[in-house]
Amino acid sequence: MRLHGYWRSSSSYRCRIAFNLKGLEYEQVPVHLVRDGGQQHTAAYRALNPQGLVPALEVDGRVLTQSPAILEWLEEMHPAPPLLPADPFERAAVRAFCAAIACEIHPLQNLRVLAHLGSAYGQDQDGKFAWCRKWNGLGLAECEAMLAHRPATRFAFGDAPGLAEVYLIPQMFSADRFGLDLTPMPRLRAIRAAAESLPQFAAAHPKAQPDAE
Amino acid sequence: MRLHGYWRSSSSYRCRIAFNLKGLEYEQVPVHLVRDGGQQHTAAYRALNPQGLVPALEVDGRVLTQSPAILEWLEEMHPAPPLLPADPFERAAVRAFCAAIACEIHPLQNLRVLAHLGSAYGQDQDGKFAWCRKWNGLGLAECEAMLAHRPATRFAFGDAPGLAEVYLIPQMFSADRFGLDLTPMPRLRAIRAAAESLPQFAAAHPKAQPDAE
Repeated sequence: MRLHGYWRSSSSYRCRIAFNLKGLEYEQVPVHLVRDGGQQHTAAYRALNPQGLVPALEVDGRVLTQSPAILEWLEEMHPAPPLLPADPFERAAVRAFCAAIACEIHPLQNLRVLAHLGSAYGQDQDGKFAWCRKWNGLGLAECEAMLAHRPATRFAFGDAPGLAEVYLIPQMFSADRFGLDLTPMPRLRAIRAAAESLPQFAAAHPKAQPDAE
Repeated sequence: MRLHGYWRSSSSYRCRIAFNLKGLEYEQVPVHLVRDGGQQHTAAYRALNPQGLVPALEVDGRVLTQSPAILEWLEEMHPAPPLLPADPFERAAVRAFCAAIACEIHPLQNLRVLAHLGSAYGQDQDGKFAWCRKWNGLGLAECEAMLAHRPATRFAFGDAPGLAEVYLIPQMFSADRFGLDLTPMPRLRAIRAAAESLPQFAAAHPKAQPDAE
């Protein structure tokens, strides 16, 4: 498997964690999202992924795109250890938590969205980061609320890490980068501490990647 | 099953199409997203869904939220007729197409995002619609590109409608509402024409709902 990604991209980070949790070997192909006007916009990369976004996964002569699709594929093809619980309602609860991140927080901090805030509304770096804090703060508070009535297990949905942490830990990394105060999310912070003590998460951290700056 | 939703919400519309394609009966509970300052913000609704977003699905004494999670649950619990193909790579291609809508287009036109464009950047209705056209235009062009090298089947991924249309048709309804010119997406328009000829899609259309205005 060859993962085309970027060290700081949280959707690439999700895939790295998941591959590590599954114990799968993979090769990394860095795609620099800023240098050269964005290497994701080259014709060569667009031929792999018409969306011009990272990540893209090459496997068995096919190319998979969009991290939610890659992660569901991974769970279907490599079911052990599972990243989703067995009970259908619990699976839905985990997927809702993941969607609260993938559909309510992450899209708003995408590079092209931030660039548009600059060109359309004159936002500088400070303004863009304030926008990111707004949506990370709101969305992570909702994630905290989604766990409020559940047992205080070691991870979000049990005593082993799974898809919830695959989405959550990269999002909290982004939130830190934007300067968000995570004090109001004690449950999420405890989950992060538990996750980051595991080698599968440590090895997936942006700063540990070959293209880290 | 009781679906708490809103006639014009595209994520509620997704669920209605999917229930109809599966041939499942469901009851609708309208949640007016504008009236009374937004009925999704009431304590009663927050008790159902801490995110204060529609849809929420009550079933067997449980509450499911986030349409991507609801739709995966539906496919697992009611597999016939299937909304996803059997081949794992094809499943990933369909899910990537859906994520291109659910993670790259829809989140940017969410009501609370548009409200923030008003309060933070002084955007009026015209400005908000221009923002929506920007992301719908870019995202739907990417969806068109994702299908460019595939056979020209009746629907996006074959001759029967599935999860791709569950996401696509509501998104095209939103794009129309924002005044987007869909001329550059002939494949998507052909898929929509095929879908809208089916009673399952017609019955799910926003204008056909009890709370339509």
